[in-house]
Amino acid sequence: MPLTMNKDVFITCAVTGSGSTQDRSPHVPRSPQQIAESAIDAAKAGAAVVHCHVRDPESGTPSRDLAYYREVTERIRDADVDVVLNLTAGMGGDITFGSTEAPFPVNEAGTDMVGAAERVAHIADCLPEICTLDCGTMNFAEADYVMTNTPGMLRAMGQMMTDLGVKPEIEAFDTGHLWFAKELVKEGVLDSPALVQLCMGVPWGAPDDLNTFMAMVNNVPDDWTFSAFALGRNQMAYVAASVLAGGNVRVGLEDNLWLEKGVLATNAQLVERAVGIIEGMGAKIIGPDQVRENLGLTKQAPR
Amino acid sequence: MPLTMNKDVFITCAVTGSGSTQDRSPHVPRSPQQIAESAIDAAKAGAAVVHCHVRDPESGTPSRDLAYYREVTERIRDADVDVVLNLTAGMGGDITFGSTEAPFPVNEAGTDMVGAAERVAHIADCLPEICTLDCGTMNFAEADYVMTNTPGMLRAMGQMMTDLGVKPEIEAFDTGHLWFAKELVKEGVLDSPALVQLCMGVPWGAPDDLNTFMAMVNNVPDDWTFSAFALGRNQMAYVAASVLAGGNVRVGLEDNLWLEKGVLATNAQLVERAVGIIEGMGAKIIGPDQVRENLGLTKQAPR
Amino acid sequence: MPLTMNKDVFITCAVTGSGSTQDRSPHVPRSPQQIAESAIDAAKAGAAVVHCHVRDPESGTPSRDLAYYREVTERIRDADVDVVLNLTAGMGGDITFGSTEAPFPVNEAGTDMVGAAERVAHIADCLPEICTLDCGTMNFAEADYVMTNTPGMLRAMGQMMTDLGVKPEIEAFDTGHLWFAKELVKEGVLDSPALVQLCMGVPWGAPDDLNTFMAMVNNVPDDWTFSAFALGRNQMAYVAASVLAGGNVRVGLEDNLWLEKGVLATNAQLVERAVGIIEGMGAKIIGPDQVRENLGLTKQAPR
Amino acid sequence: MPLTMNKDVFITCAVTGSGSTQDRSPHVPRSPQQIAESAIDAAKAGAAVVHCHVRDPESGTPSRDLAYYREVTERIRDADVDVVLNLTAGMGGDITFGSTEAPFPVNEAGTDMVGAAERVAHIADCLPEICTLDCGTMNFAEADYVMTNTPGMLRAMGQMMTDLGVKPEIEAFDTGHLWFAKELVKEGVLDSPALVQLCMGVPWGAPDDLNTFMAMVNNVPDDWTFSAFALGRNQMAYVAASVLAGGNVRVGLEDNLWLEKGVLATNAQLVERAVGIIEGMGAKIIGPDQVRENLGLTKQAPR
Repeated sequence: MPLTMNKDVFITCAVTGSGSTQDRSPHVPRSPQQIAESAIDAAKAGAAVVHCHVRDPESGTPSRDLAYYREVTERIRDADVDVVLNLTAGMGGDITFGSTEAPFPVNEAGTDMVGAAERVAHIADCLPEICTLDCGTMNFAEADYVMTNTPGMLRAMGQMMTDLGVKPEIEAFDTGHLWFAKELVKEGVLDSPALVQLCMGVPWGAPDDLNTFMAMVNNVPDDWTFSAFALGRNQMAYVAASVLAGGNVRVGLEDNLWLEKGVLATNAQLVERAVGIIEGMGAKIIGPDQVRENLGLTKQAPR
Repeated sequence: MPLTMNKDVFITCAVTGSGSTQDRSPHVPRSPQQIAESAIDAAKAGAAVVHCHVRDPESGTPSRDLAYYREVTERIRDADVDVVLNLTAGMGGDITFGSTEAPFPVNEAGTDMVGAAERVAHIADCLPEICTLDCGTMNFAEADYVMTNTPGMLRAMGQMMTDLGVKPEIEAFDTGHLWFAKELVKEGVLDSPALVQLCMGVPWGAPDDLNTFMAMVNNVPDDWTFSAFALGRNQMAYVAASVLAGGNVRVGLEDNLWLEKGVLATNAQLVERAVGIIEGMGAKIIGPDQVRENLGLTKQAPR
Repeated sequence: MPLTMNKDVFITCAVTGSGSTQDRSPHVPRSPQQIAESAIDAAKAGAAVVHCHVRDPESGTPSRDLAYYREVTERIRDADVDVVLNLTAGMGGDITFGSTEAPFPVNEAGTDMVGAAERVAHIADCLPEICTLDCGTMNFAEADYVMTNTPGMLRAMGQMMTDLGVKPEIEAFDTGHLWFAKELVKEGVLDSPALVQLCMGVPWGAPDDLNTFMAMVNNVPDDWTFSAFALGRNQMAYVAASVLAGGNVRVGLEDNLWLEKGVLATNAQLVERAVGIIEGMGAKIIGPDQVRENLGLTKQAPR
Repeated sequence: MPLTMNKDVFITCAVTGSGSTQDRSPHVPRSPQQIAESAIDAAKAGAAVVHCHVRDPESGTPSRDLAYYREVTERIRDADVDVVLNLTAGMGGDITFGSTEAPFPVNEAGTDMVGAAERVAHIADCLPEICTLDCGTMNFAEADYVMTNTPGMLRAMGQMMTDLGVKPEIEAFDTGHLWFAKELVKEGVLDSPALVQLCMGVPWGAPDDLNTFMAMVNNVPDDWTFSAFALGRNQMAYVAASVLAGGNVRVGLEDNLWLEKGVLATNAQLVERAVGIIEGMGAKIIGPDQVRENLGLTKQAPR
């Protein structure tokens, strides 16, 4: 009944994402080398986990190229700092429709819908300790695009992750996604206890007001581990919110480009800022080994 | 600060829906005549509003046939009981994919994606006092199908409804849908104050636990009117929940087939049951004229 | 995560209380015989538990006279209907001060502060299956009087109840009272799992809005049994609220005199009304034997 | 609907309190000079408001001596840093009973119950910009003592404060206290909009879990100003919690003695720590002039 604040907090740095942010800040890393270096800097600043997407090194547009994932993975495993690797498996579930009067045929440029095996191929190849599973379908952010992950697709991808021994981090963008995550655990597709990221303030998913956040937190099973973040300008506020509610935190350039008004951030700076808030609140930052022990993860050796 | 219970409650009866329930209960109306008669019986039992879909009269499968909507509309307008007519505009936004390994081409049988004008055509023709606007995209219920309403589609359909003078009832199946509803009002697409239905317990939208429900209720603007329902066995429980939280109620065979364990219900019986709970709690049932006055609706004369 | 509605609900009828309501309704029972008869009628209407205070048979003013408690107890045990007996132990903790400029000496007429043993004497004598323990100190209702139960007093009274084998029903009038109840269980003064009544809308305790109610419900340990009521005109609304939140219900003339506007109620009528709401919501009413089994109570034989 | 975080936050430093903490830390100020100096240091560290009690300079036990209040007031007004002065009016409402078997006569050593005029005398004399009004009666903290403020006493004291032009800061230790605060405003005893401090985690008032906190926040009227704190080890966590929920913050030795495990804090250090958290979250610290403007306070000139 007293405050269930988390006193042993891990920080995930979401290094680059797949938004079209690469031209809005010089700090958004594009090439595998840049992504790995930014992740390593974040780890040195205090992140126990780095969550990575890959991009085309030239244009910076999001990519699913296996070679890029491999290079990021190897560079991070070879680094002189230890960190838990978390790769996205969110790519390959995007639809943009033709127009409001003619939805089909879909807009090819904005559509990337592939099968489960292809969506998980880089996970099978790289074997990160964690990979994400976007646990539902919704209108995603300002663009008129649909993030599409049907129940059938989630069962297929989730089972592949479980079979690979890679821990899925469930991304819950609204209350219904968390509900379905519990269904996946109930069906045995995902192991229990599960790991969930509460993704707040992503249009048009759950807004980041505290009533909605607490409704989600109250629905996370007691033995699961959760983390939370808010998209955009409330990123640092949610560092505090998640710790207060008993969770871990995620910061990074995937979700927010700014250190403060007018000042573009690096990933390391965002992690440092989070460390300051967390320690100021009286909690401790835990490192990658503690995270592995808590979540039952096995570190892969560098090749 | 005391309980904000609604003391003047209107009941919407959701008469038939578009689920494949027609073979699970003999009381699910199929033909326009059956649908109108069931709606009229519900009105006589106390429903101020009837929410209607149409079906193929033979097979009972869901339909968007304009002639059926017209017949339902005329029969209800010609009835010897007054009631507010609410027609669905939810049809025409369905996608079922090919398979988890090959999402495209889509499954034709489970896909019905049409343009905004076509989705609203029967509304323009029948001019009901209210029509629904499903305010988002999500995995819908047990079948592996996606209810697809992108922001662009919702802006287009919402504007058409506003231009027609038909009040949109926003269907919010999760917290993000309510957020986007507020965006539509902010953009001027929908008039303020708006009317919203909180749709609880529809897999995989917002679960129907009270914490999630209150998070949604706390996010409804003070001057809006809301109603709420829960899918399935908690239908009657949510009659109480919504009135307690300050809202109106929806019951009917679209959402629940059962009066009690082992006893299939008629729409009129479900409305009667709701009347009993509401009056038992000390609130009053209001009729169609009061609803029109509260919501600023104009009744269309029979042709 | 779905609604945690209680499907097996017991009703407590709070038969007469100790408020100065006896002149405001002819149905408020005064004499032990009237109180027992009203309780028995409530049991016949569906109450599994009757919660009784006693009053001076002539004036109707609240009393702590042992003979009255005995008579009520014996009449109820001798009745031709089975019911769980719940006696108040709330009397004897009242202070009314002299004036705002001279609090001391206290106002004798409004003050009744006695020791723990005296407050529990009738419990030791009558051995009801349940007795109440008002779990805190607060300004109570409109009169300028303080309901006074210090931690030390609650430890002393609670231990006596535990030693007597009488199940304490913890009365939590605000969130802090529930917190202290958990402290009493933690200290071993009360057995776990405990039984708690969430008393909503009693000025100046917890208001009966649903946010406050849910905050209290969320703080009841999972294995405890709870019931809830709201004082006054929201009594029937809270029948629904408590069942929805997973609890049991309390109605009766102690908390509310009215069946509807302008119609004074009897206890049996209030119970019948509650039965209708609960069954309408799809839950079942359980009887005294089931309550005894659930709570581990032992029925005392009539003398 | 997005997070209602407060971006312009004022910090109150609660300098010394009236708890028996003076022997547990060398930094708890005792004499008027020490109290004023510690308050001034807190103001220099970023507190816009200092909340002061006074103590016997030798023993450090709590005092209501007018001379001490005057000296504190004058020293703070004469300081080379501007700060809003907030004096307690919480003293003089304490009862400790004789024993659980004989509550009366009360324990003289633990009892200090005086009239409204005497409780407000130092406020009338010193005319601070703000004074506190503990808005209810409850078992207070670990000692078996009752903080006693009846509705009548609160009406009398509140009216005196309003008449003096001193802004009452309502101390709400549980949900019912906030309810009564709204009653005082409704009755016209206190001006609207009011200023309220949500006091979390004080045994046996509202616990400091976030569900309870949000229930209280949801019940603060939109146009009021609120601040919040948690007693003890969650003090810094609540700096974040209150800002997230739209409020201001209070830190200081009255509520918490520790900077971190094993390190006793000064008031200035606690304020600095709070500044770091607030600025890290992306909010701004406002000063005394901005607070005066926001709350309509008038600064008294030094004598």
